[in-house]
Amino acid sequence: MICSIEDSPLYPIINPKSIAFFGASNNILRMGSLMLSSTQALGYEGKIYPVHPSETAVRGLAAYQSIADVPEAPDCAIIVLPTDIVCRTLEDCGKKGIRHAIVVSGGFREAGPEGAALQKKLERIAGRYGIRFLGPNCLGVANPHLKFNPTTITDDGAPGFVGLASQSGSFVTQMFDYLHRHGLGFSAAFSVGNEANIDLVDCLEYLGACPRTKVITLYIEGITRGKKFVETARAVAARKPVVALYIGGSEAGRSAGLSHTGSLSGPDEIYNGIFRQCGIIRAQTLTEMFDYALALGTLPRPKGNRVVVQTHSGGPGATAADACGRAGLVLPSLSAQTVERLKPMIPKTASTANPIDMTFSRNSEETFFNIPDILLDDDRIDMLLAYFLSPGLFVERVLREMGVAETDIPVERDKMINGHIEAFLTLVRRHPDKPIVGFTYRSLQETMVRRLLDRGVPVYQDPERAARAMAAALSYWRMRDERSRDKSKKHSSIQRG
Amino acid sequence: MICSIEDSPLYPIINPKSIAFFGASNNILRMGSLMLSSTQALGYEGKIYPVHPSETAVRGLAAYQSIADVPEAPDCAIIVLPTDIVCRTLEDCGKKGIRHAIVVSGGFREAGPEGAALQKKLERIAGRYGIRFLGPNCLGVANPHLKFNPTTITDDGAPGFVGLASQSGSFVTQMFDYLHRHGLGFSAAFSVGNEANIDLVDCLEYLGACPRTKVITLYIEGITRGKKFVETARAVAARKPVVALYIGGSEAGRSAGLSHTGSLSGPDEIYNGIFRQCGIIRAQTLTEMFDYALALGTLPRPKGNRVVVQTHSGGPGATAADACGRAGLVLPSLSAQTVERLKPMIPKTASTANPIDMTFSRNSEETFFNIPDILLDDDRIDMLLAYFLSPGLFVERVLREMGVAETDIPVERDKMINGHIEAFLTLVRRHPDKPIVGFTYRSLQETMVRRLLDRGVPVYQDPERAARAMAAALSYWRMRDERSRDKSKKHSSIQRG
Repeated sequence: MICSIEDSPLYPIINPKSIAFFGASNNILRMGSLMLSSTQALGYEGKIYPVHPSETAVRGLAAYQSIADVPEAPDCAIIVLPTDIVCRTLEDCGKKGIRHAIVVSGGFREAGPEGAALQKKLERIAGRYGIRFLGPNCLGVANPHLKFNPTTITDDGAPGFVGLASQSGSFVTQMFDYLHRHGLGFSAAFSVGNEANIDLVDCLEYLGACPRTKVITLYIEGITRGKKFVETARAVAARKPVVALYIGGSEAGRSAGLSHTGSLSGPDEIYNGIFRQCGIIRAQTLTEMFDYALALGTLPRPKGNRVVVQTHSGGPGATAADACGRAGLVLPSLSAQTVERLKPMIPKTASTANPIDMTFSRNSEETFFNIPDILLDDDRIDMLLAYFLSPGLFVERVLREMGVAETDIPVERDKMINGHIEAFLTLVRRHPDKPIVGFTYRSLQETMVRRLLDRGVPVYQDPERAARAMAAALSYWRMRDERSRDKSKKHSSIQRG
Repeated sequence: MICSIEDSPLYPIINPKSIAFFGASNNILRMGSLMLSSTQALGYEGKIYPVHPSETAVRGLAAYQSIADVPEAPDCAIIVLPTDIVCRTLEDCGKKGIRHAIVVSGGFREAGPEGAALQKKLERIAGRYGIRFLGPNCLGVANPHLKFNPTTITDDGAPGFVGLASQSGSFVTQMFDYLHRHGLGFSAAFSVGNEANIDLVDCLEYLGACPRTKVITLYIEGITRGKKFVETARAVAARKPVVALYIGGSEAGRSAGLSHTGSLSGPDEIYNGIFRQCGIIRAQTLTEMFDYALALGTLPRPKGNRVVVQTHSGGPGATAADACGRAGLVLPSLSAQTVERLKPMIPKTASTANPIDMTFSRNSEETFFNIPDILLDDDRIDMLLAYFLSPGLFVERVLREMGVAETDIPVERDKMINGHIEAFLTLVRRHPDKPIVGFTYRSLQETMVRRLLDRGVPVYQDPERAARAMAAALSYWRMRDERSRDKSKKHSSIQRG
């Protein structure tokens, strides 16, 4: 295990001060050109040396006919060339003194026996020069914190706390927008491709040591270094949450994975066992993986599975209660004292059973602060799940009807919503030991929810996703406790022995 | 069973030519005022008669001190008054000759024994005057086709083909935006409340006969008229799909439902049995219910469960394959002839196994027309599941890089995207017997997907939702076939006997 990311072979690959770029030209429709364009688009501040056999300038940068001509040995080479010249190029890089590379080109192990032989050759060349490389057949890395993102599609996804190591490049390069919409962002993301030299285990080590990574996510179609993976994952998961999506459990999924990276997957049950052994939380879908990451990266450790649901609408309250029940969470009744404290704040027709159904929001301050504050004070409650409605159009209509001038409405609306947000954030700060989660059926991009997401409050698209994510957070901490108990037991029995 | 919606007691309630409004005033913060404001906001073209004890005008409309003063007997009375004057008001309506009402007011059966007695009284009054009413404790109805939506929140959700009968008013009034975002809209929606007079069964009959309703959705916390429900649902489901969400399966869900409408729910298994008996498709969550509705309302009848997945990205292909596998769909290999036809169109490194992974979109026309067209020609294939990426920002970047002038980019981008859409719609028309479904991890509001949704192509937020919805469509038709086989068997044995 490494202690610092600087000790990882991935460090110069995802934090390069300079890169050599092979395969970019002035024809934007080539993969390499797109990747260089991405690198420039996000504002990467390191040196870029395009290498091109004939162009003297590529995308506004001075180009070099051969890597030998480049004035320094760059930290990392990015190779996006036709398969048959990849080996030669890597060899040239080795001669130049380059020790790290990303091989994007495909046509290796995933392409059959001939490709597999070529991959062996590539591995031998790397071995000879001490080169560590990601790929081949990968889409590279993304480090939004460093504005370094050479992948093909770079939406302006904000940097975040999610580390990803993925056997699919798409889930690096095509998820920036998805993550942003859900209140997430990458701390560091790796597309591992065929894992000829650097594999999932190396990524796990890097992400485990990466201070910006709060949660590690893994997209897995098959694990090669099994024993080492388990050893590393166990150690990492004891310090930060690891969530894995394994595709290959269904027959259809298995054969899809096989043709995609050529890695061998096994039956679902084996992977369940491996994940359990490691303390990895398993997600069944990509949606679930990132949902879990949001909860695990933002919520404090829950003390138990007792949830209070707060709503002003019966249906959403009932679906939330049902979702909690199915996720293994319970909805205890509140203490008599809590009910007493609530009484002055909620209408007679409201319910103080759990879910707390206020029937309507009488007073926003009470809705977003006083009532949930009382609920969270209750010792019987470990977590809060709150329903968010607050549609902007409705607020505007009410303001208009109240006689607010048309020109003042946007300002008044914002003032109102900001008040709600501040009240809710105060609530979160006042209960640092109790997870607070929201759900809504409206768009996550509506003002209030969007701003809460931006400030680290997890809000989900429906109650099922919220409840499952809360349950995942709980099970991570339970697994971690169990493991540390086992460890100390083992330790004390060794001492006794 | 009714043959025409005009025969339903709900007809004048959801298609009124005139309404009497009780409980609206010039104070917008009252529920009644909000509901009247909604009715006006959407542009309802019928007559509205506000009844108010002291105001002479309410929200710009002439108000009447008593219903006796109103110049006609309106089709429907909407009552949003304090509990204790509801009975008297309904009696006044009866005397006036009004025969239909929506009782929004709460404080009846859901509020305990006293409320239950009051509800009995309300029922007796209705009986005496032959009044049919929805509620009490409901949020009314929505008929976007008629621009009639007196519920509290009325986003500009377009009218659509989804009928809803809901034991939660929120799922009528708070779902307009949700439905619109997912390519859906209500044909007619009923919040049934306590079902004192009109119940789920009546709604089922109405929606069964409603020509604008292609799919019926039900939100159920408990069924009262069990036998009649089964009888009606069986008859309706034989003609159009019915999808139900039953909350009450988990203990938490059960107690939430109990305090919400006061209806008794039973164990999950009983409801599973009832739904199976009726031919109702069961959804486990609200998200699933509307996902199923989208598939059932847009797709042709699938011939079988054999799906081809088309993608240009390995990861999304693998998750889609896995999702199909879990949903009970299969991914057969393609015929040799199909593979032969595909060869000229896809790169060497692509996969012609199923999923068809083109690795990248070489040519949009091929991606959105030729390739899926070849796939759908294959007799081994019953349905297509296609991955949609096409991020607008990326398209703009490529156009910019290709030298298109900045001012022309929006036009060029739209032209490009419209070309893709037309190609895809031609594809759909060319294969009227094979369901075609899309999935994306990007926002459904991005141009291409949004326009496809608007034109009736179902696209889902992730492959799991797509696969489950396709499986639901399949199981509806299988159930319907089975039932009609049983029926004709029964029929022929009666003839023989």
